[in-house]
Amino acid sequence: MKSDSVLEDLIVAFTMLPGIGHKSAVRMSYHLLQKNRPGGKSLAKAIEFAMDSISCCSSCRNFTTSEVCVICSQSKRDKSILCIVENPIDVLLIEQIGLFNGLYFVLMGHLSPLDGIGAYELGMPLLRSRVLQGGVKEMIIATNATVEGSATANYIKELTSDLKIKITRISHGLPAGSELEYVDSTTLACALMERKELN
Amino acid sequence: MKSDSVLEDLIVAFTMLPGIGHKSAVRMSYHLLQKNRPGGKSLAKAIEFAMDSISCCSSCRNFTTSEVCVICSQSKRDKSILCIVENPIDVLLIEQIGLFNGLYFVLMGHLSPLDGIGAYELGMPLLRSRVLQGGVKEMIIATNATVEGSATANYIKELTSDLKIKITRISHGLPAGSELEYVDSTTLACALMERKELN
Repeated sequence: MKSDSVLEDLIVAFTMLPGIGHKSAVRMSYHLLQKNRPGGKSLAKAIEFAMDSISCCSSCRNFTTSEVCVICSQSKRDKSILCIVENPIDVLLIEQIGLFNGLYFVLMGHLSPLDGIGAYELGMPLLRSRVLQGGVKEMIIATNATVEGSATANYIKELTSDLKIKITRISHGLPAGSELEYVDSTTLACALMERKELN
Repeated sequence: MKSDSVLEDLIVAFTMLPGIGHKSAVRMSYHLLQKNRPGGKSLAKAIEFAMDSISCCSSCRNFTTSEVCVICSQSKRDKSILCIVENPIDVLLIEQIGLFNGLYFVLMGHLSPLDGIGAYELGMPLLRSRVLQGGVKEMIIATNATVEGSATANYIKELTSDLKIKITRISHGLPAGSELEYVDSTTLACALMERKELN
């Protein structure tokens, strides 16, 4: 059976979303058509408007609709600590913990020379100028615990080693609540090597 | 942290989709913004266009962009068998099996007097007129195997009992590949009661 191509186009469009396969896309399309057309139209408007109006903060490269994002414009933030993350969503996740009161810098990816992603694409010139403007005392590198994330962390460390500031990286080891039995060997090896002295 | 409201609106809009909670909506929003803005815009257009242009087939009430849907307009279809389903997606699922060559009738829901869904809302006048136009010899009721689906099946049977056609309902019992041990008691009871004689 060939259903109408408009419906097929809608289903294909939904599969573009992360984690959405054909079956989920079918369910979403039929759900909106049968049960929530006004909702569908407002979703379309929200997507369109967000794609058009959200750009990157001129200071930290996080998503914003203004020149400078909400976090960078807060005066009570500690401007001496800069947390470097790969993606804008990482900022959201760290903010949700409520433990960090410094500022961020978003790389918008990780080092990937084969894809043409190097120092410039990761915003190194902007990062350097932020640090050189003064006030930054510590740079926490919070890239992912992947091969790419680690390579990016080392790369940033080398590129900024002349800036004479403290450079740290978030720790790696056993995730909270985990048992040794169920942790993969790379994590276990990392946890062993990065062991801390108990005082 | 309050992120920009445009991004928040987008996240909230995504949670309207079936099976999408806050976390998935966040992932979808950031994914489109960071990695696929043209895709996001085409998704918005596809949703908008589908909501505006897809209506119901004047013959079977399935989704279509024409007056009569693709299935109803196929001349090689067996017009003597009519399969009654609750939702448009059910048509798609039955078509995917490739076993049924008759026509459909979509109720667009199930009997629900408290929500004001009765004979008229389920399209009974249209269904009767289709059968009365002649040619229909069997009506297969393929509503869901739920309390509401069964009530709807009985209701349709009573409303159409004067039409002098064969009325059947799809069978209920053990799903393919299942083991008795893992099947719920209602299904098992149903399978026992609806047992068939082996010849």
